[in-house]
Formats: sequence, structure tokens, C-alpha cells
Amino acid sequence: MSLLIVGSIAFDSIKTPHDAVEEALGGSCVYCALAASFFTDVRLVGIVGDDFPREHVELLESRRIDLSGLETVEGGKTFRWSGEYFDNMNRRETLSVDLNVLEHFDPKLPDSYRDSEFVFLANAAPQTQMSVLDQVKNPRFVMADTMDLWIKTQHAEVLELLKKIDGIIINDDEAILLTETRNLVEAGNRILEMGPSRVIIKKGEHGAMMFTGEEVVPLPAFPIHDVRDPTGAGDSFAGGLMGELSRSGDVEAMRLKRALAQGIVVSSLCCEDFGVRRLVSSSVDDLESRYRKYRELLQIDD
Amino acid sequence: MSLLIVGSIAFDSIKTPHDAVEEALGGSCVYCALAASFFTDVRLVGIVGDDFPREHVELLESRRIDLSGLETVEGGKTFRWSGEYFDNMNRRETLSVDLNVLEHFDPKLPDSYRDSEFVFLANAAPQTQMSVLDQVKNPRFVMADTMDLWIKTQHAEVLELLKKIDGIIINDDEAILLTETRNLVEAGNRILEMGPSRVIIKKGEHGAMMFTGEEVVPLPAFPIHDVRDPTGAGDSFAGGLMGELSRSGDVEAMRLKRALAQGIVVSSLCCEDFGVRRLVSSSVDDLESRYRKYRELLQIDD
Repeated sequence: MSLLIVGSIAFDSIKTPHDAVEEALGGSCVYCALAASFFTDVRLVGIVGDDFPREHVELLESRRIDLSGLETVEGGKTFRWSGEYFDNMNRRETLSVDLNVLEHFDPKLPDSYRDSEFVFLANAAPQTQMSVLDQVKNPRFVMADTMDLWIKTQHAEVLELLKKIDGIIINDDEAILLTETRNLVEAGNRILEMGPSRVIIKKGEHGAMMFTGEEVVPLPAFPIHDVRDPTGAGDSFAGGLMGELSRSGDVEAMRLKRALAQGIVVSSLCCEDFGVRRLVSSSVDDLESRYRKYRELLQIDD
Repeated sequence: MSLLIVGSIAFDSIKTPHDAVEEALGGSCVYCALAASFFTDVRLVGIVGDDFPREHVELLESRRIDLSGLETVEGGKTFRWSGEYFDNMNRRETLSVDLNVLEHFDPKLPDSYRDSEFVFLANAAPQTQMSVLDQVKNPRFVMADTMDLWIKTQHAEVLELLKKIDGIIINDDEAILLTETRNLVEAGNRILEMGPSRVIIKKGEHGAMMFTGEEVVPLPAFPIHDVRDPTGAGDSFAGGLMGELSRSGDVEAMRLKRALAQGIVVSSLCCEDFGVRRLVSSSVDDLESRYRKYRELLQIDD
């Protein structure tokens, strides 16, 4: 089935203790779309300036990503972000943010997108997310991401959004901020009460937990020795998860668990190289073999 | 098969935001032995004063725990610890430690214990742990715990211990301290190079990771809503793990993974009430039904 993804497209400048890149392709929408493209056809909604190179467009197109919803602002500049990682990737500092064309991004869905069945609203102001939602006819499953900034500054709007979506993907710190409890199991259950029927709490190197009201499913991260760049890990996770759901066309409990596992696996690949490199260089076979390995690690025989 | 457990026996005074107990039965050896007793026959080595009540002895005996190695010091006082939990159980402060009889504990194994096949050396000075090891004839599998204090103050002795044991159970913070790396996968692999063929890193509410040289197995914690008292969770984990290994009499990879899972499950029970209460009140059925649930949570179908 079709998966609609709305989010940011960026030039990222990233520094780690080992290496650095300048103005590499990034942004929540790009990571999420590339990850999802292993599983399903993706419809992308985003905005760039006229400095966005043809090669990036071609890369996305080569992954069967529909770019009818890509808006290019003539004379505008693409969103830029730069950050640095410390302490073996456990701490990140944002060095600069230039919103540029993203500042006035008012997503307009092409008509061909309006029948999208699966929708992922990457992190953005909740009003922007809701305006996208209003443009989709009759979605089957809508998942959104959010962040501490919106929870703090647009609390009422975040609560309104939560009532309109089927699932939320949220970091552990943000879940704690939103619910004012430090127990993550409690936090997940409280967010369920705020509206969505599926809550997924991301825990970085510790994996993720999914809350469905019937059960709490904790899954660990796929263990990787060499984290080269965690940028985009959360968005790749969301992309793998939504991609797998869209492929299966089903959101019952076992499908959701499988989608959670696919999200974890594809995000582990993402961390193994800078920016989107590993997502681009990996084959479907790479992903499938890691997924099999992951299932096997969690399989406890009688 | 027989499981030998050496460690502390204590009166614990515990305060949490919700409740408090005074001088309740505790200590690493007690938690570990009670958890292991669900799986196997336990031989306990520990020391108490003559203030240690008959009812505690009877409780341990009722769980088929062999107390031939329990030393009672006439006129001595049992080890006492008190601590308080804050921030929904995520932070602990030790309020007081009275070593009492534990200060000069020099464990002597009864002859009947010398043929023990599985040995768990709970946290103690590495020399004490090694002296116990010297008294066991020909153990099949020896696992030890340690702590930051010994890693800092008796570093050489800890390294010597690591060369003599088959497995180590260590907290994430301690693994980082010991190896000076912040990536836990890297840390586990470095500890393998220090001697033991099995390394288990405990991550509290995030579960545990096992390193066998061939693979890294990450397992999540069993999700619990209401953590009432995390005291003894790590020792219960070790007890469940060693108990299951001793029951199966085997330490190959799949048995180890099952043992890891049993450790996680029994430690989740431990946290659901104060001190040893839940370990004592739980039945084998309680444990088995939670274990089945845990396996099911991690089972990802095709």
C-alpha cells in the first residue's frame, strides 16, 4: 500500500570524534523515506531551495520514492543543520540551524497523494502536522513523531494532535516530559490515554517499547560495535516501521511487532556510516539477513 | 546439579517514595539463593550474627537451601545496610553500612560443598572471591559479580579474578569503568579479552546483554508498571541465571540465553514488592507463566 511521509529535507554538517561531513543529504523525511523504501512505495512531501542538487533527486527517485510532493522554492535555500557528537556518540550538540525555506513550509498534498492509506508525520509543529492530516481523504493508519520543543511550547496543540492520530513515536525523554512520570511503562500507558491506540517509545541504544493497551512489547536494539553517526536513526526507525506496516497492509499486534523489529534493524544499519550512506549502500539482502539474525537473537527455545 | 552461592546476608532498611521497611532480610546471597531455589538445589555460604532470627533460617531451609555453610558468630551482629530510593526508583542513596560480622568474613567451605559444579561468587573483595574458588575441587562453571569499589581500589586483583572465572556479571556503569569505553558492545567484547568466556552486562530497566565471543545477545527487561523496590534485582537476576544453568547442567549458547531470560524474569518479580517478599510469595507457576509471557513477547513470527 502507499505510504505518505511528510518531514524535513536538509543539508547536514556532522562532526564526530572520528570524522566529519559537510552539507550531506539529510532531514527526517529523507531518512524516513529511504528506510521505508526497502519495504514499500513512498510518497514524499517536503520543501527544498534551488540549491538542492539533481543527484539527490535522482537518488530518491532511484528508490521508487514519488516526488510529486517535493516543492522547490526558486531563489530559496534548503534547510541546513549542523551538529557535533561527543562521548562516543552518547551526547549531541546542535551547532547551528538555518531553517531557510522550511520556515514557511505549508505542505500542500498533490491530488495523487490524497488517497494515501498509511501516513507518517515526521517531527514538525503540530499545526503543520494536522494541516497535512486534513488533506488526506481516509487514511487507515496515521503515525506522528514530535519533540520536546512542541511539548513545551505548544502543549495544547500536541494534545489535540494526539487525539487525531493512531500512533505516536516518541523518545524516552519526551515521553517523561509529556507525562511527568519517570517509569517508561507508566508513561507509555498514560500516553495511550491521551488518544493514540499505539504508542512507541524509542530508547536509543536500548531499543524501543510498544504499547497497544493489551500489552507492552519491549524490544532491544540490534547490537552494533561501531556507531559512526547516529543522525537519522530515529527517522530510519520510523521509516522501517511504517514501511513494513504499509507493505503488510495490516496493523494487528503481530504485524506491529514485526514492523517494530524492522524499524530497529534498519536504524542499526543507518548508524554504521555517516548520514544516509549506509541506507543507500545497503541491499534488501543486507537488511533481510540482519532481520533474520535479530529474530534469531530474540528466539528463546524450549 | 549443585549450585554454590557465596555472598552477603543482611538486614536491610529501605525507604522509597511510597513505603519503608526496617531491618528486613536481605543481602546478595539471600536474594540470589531465593531466586536460584526456583530452579535448583542451592548451597549457601555466608555469615550472620547471633541476632539472626530462627524464622529467616527456616525460610531459607523451606526452599531447600543447604545452610551447612552458614556461619553464625556468637555475640556478633549481622551486617546492616540502609538506603533510600528517589526519582521513581531511578536513583539510590546508601544511608548507612554497618559491616559487623561481614568485616572479617573469611568463607570456609564445608567438605560437602567442595564438589559443587556451579559456583556464583556474589559481589565481595576479589581476594575473598578467589579464596572461595580455591576451595572448590573442580567446578564446571564459575560466575562472579563485582562492583565499582573493587574496580577502583583493587584493580589488579579484579583482573586476576577475571582470568580465573568462566563468566562475569557486571553493571553497565561498571563495565564502562573497567574498560574505559562508553559503547557497551565494545565494553563487553573488551571484558571477554580479559579472561572470562561469558560476559553479562546488566542494564537495569533496559535488560541485559550477553557476550559469548560468537555473538552478542541483547534481551530487554520484562516490563513492569509498578516498581516498588529494586533492591536485590541484580542478585535475583544472577540467581535465576545460575539456577537455570545449574538445573540444565549445560552452558551452551541456547541454554545461556534461556538462563539470561530466567534471570530477567525472576528479577522483575523481585522488584514488585519490598525486599524478598515477592520472591518468597511467588510460586513456580507464577514464574513459569511470566517466563512464557516473556518468550512470547520476544517471539517475532514470519
